[in-house]
Amino acid sequence: MSRRWHTLALAGALTLVLVVGCSSATSNTSKSSGKLTEVRSGNFATIVAAPENPDNPTTPEKVELGKMLFFDPRLSGSGAISCASCHNLALGGTDRLQFSRGHDFQETGRNAPTVLNAAFFQNQFWDGRAQGLEEQAGGPIQAPGEMNMPADKAVERIKSIQGYHEYFKKAFPNEEDPITFENITKAIAAFERTLITPNDALDRYLRGDKNALSPQAIRGMETFDSIGCTSCHAGPALSSGAMMKFDYGTDLGKASWTGNPQDEKFFRVQTLRNVSLTGPYFHDGSAETLEEAVTTMARVQLGVTLTDQQRDDIVAFLKSLVGEMPDISVPVLPPN
Amino acid sequence: MSRRWHTLALAGALTLVLVVGCSSATSNTSKSSGKLTEVRSGNFATIVAAPENPDNPTTPEKVELGKMLFFDPRLSGSGAISCASCHNLALGGTDRLQFSRGHDFQETGRNAPTVLNAAFFQNQFWDGRAQGLEEQAGGPIQAPGEMNMPADKAVERIKSIQGYHEYFKKAFPNEEDPITFENITKAIAAFERTLITPNDALDRYLRGDKNALSPQAIRGMETFDSIGCTSCHAGPALSSGAMMKFDYGTDLGKASWTGNPQDEKFFRVQTLRNVSLTGPYFHDGSAETLEEAVTTMARVQLGVTLTDQQRDDIVAFLKSLVGEMPDISVPVLPPN
Repeated sequence: MSRRWHTLALAGALTLVLVVGCSSATSNTSKSSGKLTEVRSGNFATIVAAPENPDNPTTPEKVELGKMLFFDPRLSGSGAISCASCHNLALGGTDRLQFSRGHDFQETGRNAPTVLNAAFFQNQFWDGRAQGLEEQAGGPIQAPGEMNMPADKAVERIKSIQGYHEYFKKAFPNEEDPITFENITKAIAAFERTLITPNDALDRYLRGDKNALSPQAIRGMETFDSIGCTSCHAGPALSSGAMMKFDYGTDLGKASWTGNPQDEKFFRVQTLRNVSLTGPYFHDGSAETLEEAVTTMARVQLGVTLTDQQRDDIVAFLKSLVGEMPDISVPVLPPN
Repeated sequence: MSRRWHTLALAGALTLVLVVGCSSATSNTSKSSGKLTEVRSGNFATIVAAPENPDNPTTPEKVELGKMLFFDPRLSGSGAISCASCHNLALGGTDRLQFSRGHDFQETGRNAPTVLNAAFFQNQFWDGRAQGLEEQAGGPIQAPGEMNMPADKAVERIKSIQGYHEYFKKAFPNEEDPITFENITKAIAAFERTLITPNDALDRYLRGDKNALSPQAIRGMETFDSIGCTSCHAGPALSSGAMMKFDYGTDLGKASWTGNPQDEKFFRVQTLRNVSLTGPYFHDGSAETLEEAVTTMARVQLGVTLTDQQRDDIVAFLKSLVGEMPDISVPVLPPN
């Protein structure tokens, strides 16, 4: 029960909650979802719903199909790897490995970012080489070191599974020939827009439950804000979603695909929601613990050497960011 | 809705159903589960509940823990492979590959049997080298070509995940030190006993709904029975669970671990429930379609050359064996 997002109960509760603040935080989220009202306080804001893509409106039929495709290993060349293999919803939407295992057990070059709340971002992948969830979804399917399935083969494979035809017709009702690679990625993206984790302790605190955060977590939140973490990690996803320089390690980040020296070591700012579930940390998965990650970020990004107390306080705050996981039942996929 | 097993509704409906037959079929299932009554007719019987193991009584706490472990890739050496990788509940409890991909993307030597209704069997693995689900569960975890995790390392890994401790305490309340390899396999087995698929068209037919099977499927069922398929494929799981000779291919079957020439090419009789979801077929995954599998089995096992009509009728019957899938929500696993 506690894992489900009780929309009605929440909506009822929210009528009693006032918007306690409205900052100039640069998050790219919408400010209300129709049902729930976003609560903002300074640089912090509750999670309400993922922003929609007007070019790919979410429908229940698209979400249902997208969930099936997300779980279907037949979208990979080997038939053994699905989106859910590395974006494991049992493990906070990631795989908890330093590097994921793709086709032929090859290690990927970067740590798998969580799919939870990924819908808040326009810049996708660590290096921002895709814009929006739709474009992102097509990447790992085709990457030879990940799912290793060329787009035309993916379409051919899905078309060969008769049971999928009706689901595509329902998800894309006005299209003559709806099984296309574009629609595969649209459906997956629509499903991913449902993978948000509202109502963590920070959100309950922002909605007025002042006991939701421990005194240590509140101190951590204040330190997090005052030393400048919130200059990037703000808003509902606790991330601006922007590309920011992180001069750490040898990975060239955005420059690896633009070739532009000015983009060197620019990475997409990650969400901190559920961060205690999604280690190890950084693009190279080199930080095993939150303590290590927090210390490094403060030093490299802000030039701040944290005291042990400050570090532990911030970690306590970060551990309060585990929201209600989406309740995902394993789909029953159509046979070959 | 249709995927859930509405116990109460079913129990209500069953008060109206008479037991229409009681054969001498040699299935090793219990004849009633307390809640539901098994209906038998000749060699056929409905699925009610998996037989219990008195040494490992099923409890909700054990099932919950077992589900977590079943989905947890940290039980593998690489951290990337879980029980659910090859026994994918989205794909009928198997992976629909000829051979599964284990550690280092190695291909296994035999086709992955479905975990659905596996609880009906004492003989486990194609070659019967394990007895019961508990012993089976320990095999792939440790096999170097599958999950590649020695038992002691598995225990160490699970112990290192603090969040698991309370779940083991609840599942094994009378034990001082409950995180053991034996208990890991007991919990997984308890979860697997819930993975049964009642109420397929055959079961509804046996319970009195004479329209549940098409005329062609009824003809197929009659042919299936009259030519002798039911000498092995009978009872709730449509399998006696016995080791039987299948002189096909080069795999030595049971003799591969007993070394006894009399065991050569003996394999465990597979369940036919959900068989249209679990191809390709046979221990070597060499039969891609049900048509091919049925034709081969009739010829090799029964010396019968089926007409096209007989073959198609039997396939229609086999396609009626897709039951209600267990409604499995993806568990939320504790962080490292």
